[in-house]
Amino acid sequence: MSRIYNFSAGPSALPEPVLRQAQEELMEWRDSGMSVMEMSHRGRFFSLIAEELENDLRTLLAIPDNYKVLFMQGGATAQFSFIPQNILNGRTRACYVNTGAWSEKAIQDAKNYCEVIVSASSEASKFTNIPDPSDWVLDEQAAYLHYTANETIHGVEFSDIPDSVGLPLVSDMSSNILSRKFDLSRFGLVYAGTQKNMGPAGVTVVIVRDDLIGKSGKQTPPVFNYADQAKNHSMLNTPATYNWYLVGLVLKWLLKQGGVDAIEQRNMAKAELLYQTIDQSSLYRNPVDPSCRSRMNVPFILADQNLDKPFLAAAEANGLFELKGHRSVGGMRASIYNAMPEEGVRALCDFMAEFERTH
Amino acid sequence: MSRIYNFSAGPSALPEPVLRQAQEELMEWRDSGMSVMEMSHRGRFFSLIAEELENDLRTLLAIPDNYKVLFMQGGATAQFSFIPQNILNGRTRACYVNTGAWSEKAIQDAKNYCEVIVSASSEASKFTNIPDPSDWVLDEQAAYLHYTANETIHGVEFSDIPDSVGLPLVSDMSSNILSRKFDLSRFGLVYAGTQKNMGPAGVTVVIVRDDLIGKSGKQTPPVFNYADQAKNHSMLNTPATYNWYLVGLVLKWLLKQGGVDAIEQRNMAKAELLYQTIDQSSLYRNPVDPSCRSRMNVPFILADQNLDKPFLAAAEANGLFELKGHRSVGGMRASIYNAMPEEGVRALCDFMAEFERTH
Repeated sequence: MSRIYNFSAGPSALPEPVLRQAQEELMEWRDSGMSVMEMSHRGRFFSLIAEELENDLRTLLAIPDNYKVLFMQGGATAQFSFIPQNILNGRTRACYVNTGAWSEKAIQDAKNYCEVIVSASSEASKFTNIPDPSDWVLDEQAAYLHYTANETIHGVEFSDIPDSVGLPLVSDMSSNILSRKFDLSRFGLVYAGTQKNMGPAGVTVVIVRDDLIGKSGKQTPPVFNYADQAKNHSMLNTPATYNWYLVGLVLKWLLKQGGVDAIEQRNMAKAELLYQTIDQSSLYRNPVDPSCRSRMNVPFILADQNLDKPFLAAAEANGLFELKGHRSVGGMRASIYNAMPEEGVRALCDFMAEFERTH
Repeated sequence: MSRIYNFSAGPSALPEPVLRQAQEELMEWRDSGMSVMEMSHRGRFFSLIAEELENDLRTLLAIPDNYKVLFMQGGATAQFSFIPQNILNGRTRACYVNTGAWSEKAIQDAKNYCEVIVSASSEASKFTNIPDPSDWVLDEQAAYLHYTANETIHGVEFSDIPDSVGLPLVSDMSSNILSRKFDLSRFGLVYAGTQKNMGPAGVTVVIVRDDLIGKSGKQTPPVFNYADQAKNHSMLNTPATYNWYLVGLVLKWLLKQGGVDAIEQRNMAKAELLYQTIDQSSLYRNPVDPSCRSRMNVPFILADQNLDKPFLAAAEANGLFELKGHRSVGGMRASIYNAMPEEGVRALCDFMAEFERTH
């Protein structure tokens, strides 16, 4: 069998040139005599890989100098707990915006460490819109304001960075980091698991402004203490070295594509194509308000639920995989991250049109 | 350049057949049409990989049915914090034995969660022996007794499982798990990072007896809550999927080698060879009491410190890498985990003898 189009929400498709390079270098990296997996994280070979990784991410995201870049483990979900542990800084409240399943999880975990003020919620619309930021209830005594930049399950994405009215802005960008331009200087902290737009699972990127760290309590494990890890260049303990290397390859691939500006154009074109196919059909429907439809995760339901199984089976027969929607919302979902080529989206759209014609 | 002998303490050498298989399967796993890195962790392909991983580990270690096997992130260092968070179970004290740098770190981190009773310490001998277990000071009100089965830096290894006199026994086996037989039923909890005897860095194995879990507080992040992760088969959030797969390949390689019994015989022979070379020489010296010398990490110092640099340079010229000792103890260290073939140890011994003759 040849490689298929993989619309998984994460872990998800990786750029083919990245996989090929990883394959070529697997037994031996350059003239090191060993695989990257076998390298001491403190050795001279891996130090090069680690340095380029941070530099390339700083370049791609235009990260200001007063921000630390941390590469951690445990996924964004672990950060739901470690963000309050690290940056409450003696305050007892934090504001959270609830725009879907991932916001809800972040809120739930934060409650173990502080009082959570839900500044806004789109639960009433079943998470198909984003409440107008001018209506958000912000508490100036809160330590920060948290929002989920893209909701992977509900397919809802912020098109602009909301105004946090002076509160440090914290954003879970797991599923749209590096897919569009962000002015990072507007944030106090940005975090993301790597398994969507940056590489395989196993690394969590935390980008945090200097002034927010260094005041966490003794209950924060050193490995997840931002200040401790910043001092140790994320090597307070052995990092997931091979995963760092793979993320580094993805970043170099993205630089070659022209960086975030260029990929954003491609992502817009891909999303437009798919939403057009959905909107022009009478079989498929996307329930999300067009102003906040996700460019990364496109959920859609079929008018007749009995067609779900035949749709998925026919899709697989056409080389289109992992289209089943999340169990909590049903229907279908196509995740079209940076690594999904336009031909993949075009193949999906053609298939959808053909399926509609024949059913 | 061809592959070298890599004596790194971790991440460390992997079995060549494992690397070759990973390379062959990198672009596409079986007939899945995708790389393992790209698979949804909840999909049918990865479910197979995850299931075999746990089954193979249970087989190799003869893990009793009343133990959960967890695959986490964050390294053994993270567990220094999460063990007390998870299994203090309302008690306020825990006993720790201090036999080296890793014991010390475990003790230091545990102090953030409970009172630590240092039941025994070999600090006075500069960690070159293990205090007689019959002299250990145990507190029957303690939640557990912790010891480090093998000290990677000091090269000190327990040859037997100590008697914990009724306390749940907890052991950091990061550097000797799967290298020798252990009766797991004697333990309450065993944990290990994978980057020495099990695969690349990025997975932490926690094996814990059923009755010890389920009573942790709300401050324990769900991702690191043993009961929550056990319920979710370590998939409460996205695991480091590719790392799981690679650990799985190492386990299958070990099964093919004849399992733990067979590898233990090889490890004994390798260690004996190296210690004999050291003991018979007048240039090299290992300071550890022969009753507790590590089979995995063999530190040695040269009689003349001025020869350290020439030794390392000549070793590299002979294809023998990563022999520099940890900065805290100086000298040299050869880590000879499961994946180090006997030929590698023999090449090192031959080189050491030759270096002594010529210096």
